[in-house]
Amino acid sequence: MTETERTGLIIVNTGNGKGKTTAALGTALRAVGTKFKVFMVQFIKGSWDYGELHVAERLAPYFEIKPMGEGFTWETKDKKRDTEVATKAWEFCKKLIDANEHDLLIFDELNNAMDYGYVDVDDVVNALKNKPKEVHIILTGRNAPQKIIDIAHLVTEMREIKHPFNQGIYAQRGIEF
Amino acid sequence: MTETERTGLIIVNTGNGKGKTTAALGTALRAVGTKFKVFMVQFIKGSWDYGELHVAERLAPYFEIKPMGEGFTWETKDKKRDTEVATKAWEFCKKLIDANEHDLLIFDELNNAMDYGYVDVDDVVNALKNKPKEVHIILTGRNAPQKIIDIAHLVTEMREIKHPFNQGIYAQRGIEF
Repeated sequence: MTETERTGLIIVNTGNGKGKTTAALGTALRAVGTKFKVFMVQFIKGSWDYGELHVAERLAPYFEIKPMGEGFTWETKDKKRDTEVATKAWEFCKKLIDANEHDLLIFDELNNAMDYGYVDVDDVVNALKNKPKEVHIILTGRNAPQKIIDIAHLVTEMREIKHPFNQGIYAQRGIEF
Repeated sequence: MTETERTGLIIVNTGNGKGKTTAALGTALRAVGTKFKVFMVQFIKGSWDYGELHVAERLAPYFEIKPMGEGFTWETKDKKRDTEVATKAWEFCKKLIDANEHDLLIFDELNNAMDYGYVDVDDVVNALKNKPKEVHIILTGRNAPQKIIDIAHLVTEMREIKHPFNQGIYAQRGIEF
């Protein structure tokens, strides 16, 4: 191995703090700066008007975001529907991996989908183990399963030390959503 | 206070893990998507050819990055020179705060500069306490001083759980730098 050899990393951003998805977006920004092609699949944040959806257009054609979830469906406790939505999103992710057309894939909140039992952990492990060698993949979300951490190269836990909501401050547009 | 009231947050990304600067970049991307004006001052990464510098041009005029450090000067152990560089960068930051021309300011690695004693913590606390009300400010870097954490609204610790270097994998261009 040389210093310049490219190894597609499996990266996990987990923990109860902020910054899991945001750090993935930052990595996307950096990757686009290197002319990498980036695709982000959002498992949850479907129907919301996020700033990142607007800005993605400015980074085209290097950066694409596809929201697969339909809003915060996982709060509906409709397990059948949520499993269907998550399964559909995961099947799409597998196609992206196999297509090998991107340098960086981001599966946003997939950790939660596995944690809730909506997506099979072993199926994800299998897909990650057999990914094209040079493709980087980031998985975000709380409670990343141990089997995922075991095969990942880079795992970071974002820990909440202090949160503005506990100081009576509502989420700030443009910053937190 | 209403849900729509804007409160400029003081945000701290600290810890020994990845994602402190990257999450700040992601927040910048999101903020730009909301038509926020963002300015990032880099205290360390001066002379390097980072992907984020290239992509910043694509987000102009909403996003500007100004590298103030001259490479990894803090590894030179030349305390006099490092203090001069850090002081110059911090004086520039104070002017940015007072100018009140941006929605989000990012002072990248300022935590380290304070931790090393190159920038006075009380001076930073004073500047943050007296910032324009609506301006959001993010401070990144390891070892954020307690006095900074005390006045911050949102503090996240990025903890390293697993790092590719420990698995014999070198830093990956486009992803880690």
